[in-house]
Order: sequence, then C-alpha cells, then structure tokens
Amino acid sequence: MSRDEIILKLKAGLKESRFKHSLGVMETSIILARRYGADVKKAGIAGLIHDCARDIPAESQLKMVENFGILLDDIEKLEPALIHGPLGAAIARKNFGVDDEEILNAVRLHTTGDKNMTLLEKIIFLSDYIEPGRCFPGVEDLRVKAFKDLDEAMISAYDSTIKYVTERESLLHPRTVCARNFILLHKRREGKA
Amino acid sequence: MSRDEIILKLKAGLKESRFKHSLGVMETSIILARRYGADVKKAGIAGLIHDCARDIPAESQLKMVENFGILLDDIEKLEPALIHGPLGAAIARKNFGVDDEEILNAVRLHTTGDKNMTLLEKIIFLSDYIEPGRCFPGVEDLRVKAFKDLDEAMISAYDSTIKYVTERESLLHPRTVCARNFILLHKRREGKA
Repeated sequence: MSRDEIILKLKAGLKESRFKHSLGVMETSIILARRYGADVKKAGIAGLIHDCARDIPAESQLKMVENFGILLDDIEKLEPALIHGPLGAAIARKNFGVDDEEILNAVRLHTTGDKNMTLLEKIIFLSDYIEPGRCFPGVEDLRVKAFKDLDEAMISAYDSTIKYVTERESLLHPRTVCARNFILLHKRREGKA
Repeated sequence: MSRDEIILKLKAGLKESRFKHSLGVMETSIILARRYGADVKKAGIAGLIHDCARDIPAESQLKMVENFGILLDDIEKLEPALIHGPLGAAIARKNFGVDDEEILNAVRLHTTGDKNMTLLEKIIFLSDYIEPGRCFPGVEDLRVKAFKDLDEAMISAYDSTIKYVTERESLLHPRTVCARNFILLHKRREGKA
C-alpha cells in the first residue's frame, strides 16, 4: 500500500483530531529521521500509522487482540490505553500491508517504550510527544531537546509519561521504568551523567 | 538484644539526625501498629532498626554486601540509596540479634516496597515517610491518609518516591512500580477505584 493509500484508509478509521495528530507525527518523524540519519521513508510510514488502533472501542480492541493471538501482559490487559501499541502493529501488518519489522516494532512500542530501542523506535516515540499539535507544559523544551540529544529527550519523555500516569492513579508499565533506567545507565557508563 | 540495648548500639553507629529519625519511625510504627492491630513490639523494633546500615559509607556497604553474600540486582548495585535495605536486614540479624523474619523483611523492603506486603512491612514503609521529623510538601496529607486507609497512603507514598526519583535523574526500581500497580489492581478488584 502506498503512503497516500494508507493516508486515505487511516482517515476513514480515525477521529478527525487523531488523523491530524497522525499527520503531525509523520511530519515530525521525517524531520527527526533526517536530523539523525534514520530511514526517512520508514519513519514517515511508522509515524503515520502508529495510532491506527487508537480509536477502536476498548471491547473491540480486546476481541481483536484475541483474534490476532496477541499475548498481552497483566498491565496491558488492564490499562486500555496500552493495548493500541501491540494491536496497532498487528493491524498495520494485516490491514495496511506493512511488513517491515522495524516499522511494526516502532508502532508496537510507541506507548510504553522499551530497553535498547532502535533509532527509528526512538524517533516515533518522541514524535508522538512533540508533533506540532501537542500542547502541554514543557513541550517546547522537549522539542528543543529532541533535536539536540535524542536520549536526553527520551528520558524527559519517560519522566513526563510517569508523571502523567501517577497523577491519574493509572497503572505504570514496568517496561517504561526499565527503558528509562536503561538510558540513564548507558549515559552513566559513557560518563555523561 | 533488648530494645534499650539496640537503641544504645544504634546511637553509636548513626549520625545524630538519623538516630533521631529512627526513634521517630519507631514511635510512628508503634502508633500505626496499634491503629491497625499489628504486633506493636515487632513494629517498634523494625521501625527503630530500619536504617541501621544507612550511614555506612557506600564503598564499605558494597564490601559488606559481598561478605554477607547478599545478591543485589542491577539497579540496587548502581543506586547506592537502595543498598541499605537488604544490607540493613543482614546487619540487624548479625549485629543486633534480630531473627524475626517479618521484622527483617520490613527492613529489607522499606526503600523500594514490594508486591503483596504484610501489614508490618507497610507500617514500616509508611512510618519512614511520615515520622514527626519529616517535612516535605504533602506530608500532612500523607499522615492523615496513613491513619485512615493504609493502602491509599501506600499509593501516595509510592507516587512521592517516583516523583522524587524522576526529578533527580536517579534509577527507579521496577519493584516500586510493580508494588504500586499491585495495590491499584487490588483496589480495582474490590471496586474501590
């Protein structure tokens, strides 16, 4: 499926605001990919499609997860906002013909993050945070940081996620904490912290 | 060793401020134990002794951990503030003659918390936060909560730990996050959240 075909199909399945957000993430991913030497085409597709499962009602999401044979852990099962990552990767493959594993992993991990992420995965994760439509305290600092030092920006983004989740009595995925620790340890070993 | 003997020995090994804190945790643990029907004597000893390893220099702590054969995980090894829990339990047993496993576990877990904590473990964890000498934004609310609903207070204490750690670019122990999720899930199952 070409990028334009993906855009048309996405538009039909997403709320207007979500579709606009997806275009914003696509644009930001492309710019960050250019900045850091990642694959620009892959970044565009991954950014565009990352939320393809986000507007599916929670009950249908759980049914689809079962049909796709996706194994969710306990926290993913119980925190609906975490399902659209792994489900989105399965839908991107089946309904949008995306078979590039790097793109699919970037979609899969864009909500929780993970240890040892690839450049593309980091770019999608951060673009989701800083695309032009995003507006929250600190987003401008995060935009500047994302273009200056990707790992520093990842730590700030994780901190932001952790703050958001704790303030709402939501479940925090341990993967997010391990991902944050992983980058901090990497920085310490390199003598940057 | 009697409680008075423990107090004398502790006084010799701790900074004055830490010794005062330990007495405050002891007093608070006793009051919370009375409130919730836990073993008052155990609570007093555990509260008193919980920081017995806290003022040992970091390098000596690591040597003692090795000599005791304590197995630390990667995060404990690299975040010095996390070592005094497991090390304190070993010192309480060897140097203070404490052989009650419930007391030792309360000492071991007082920094990170854990899933499925006992009443005594929760009481020591919270007393460490709210003893009369503690002074931080929100401590009064936490004091009120601790006497009203122990699990609600645990969630607030975990949130406070998580906030403290993320603001300092320190490593966050995944056990703390799992412990917080555990109580939230328990509350959801009981229909309280």
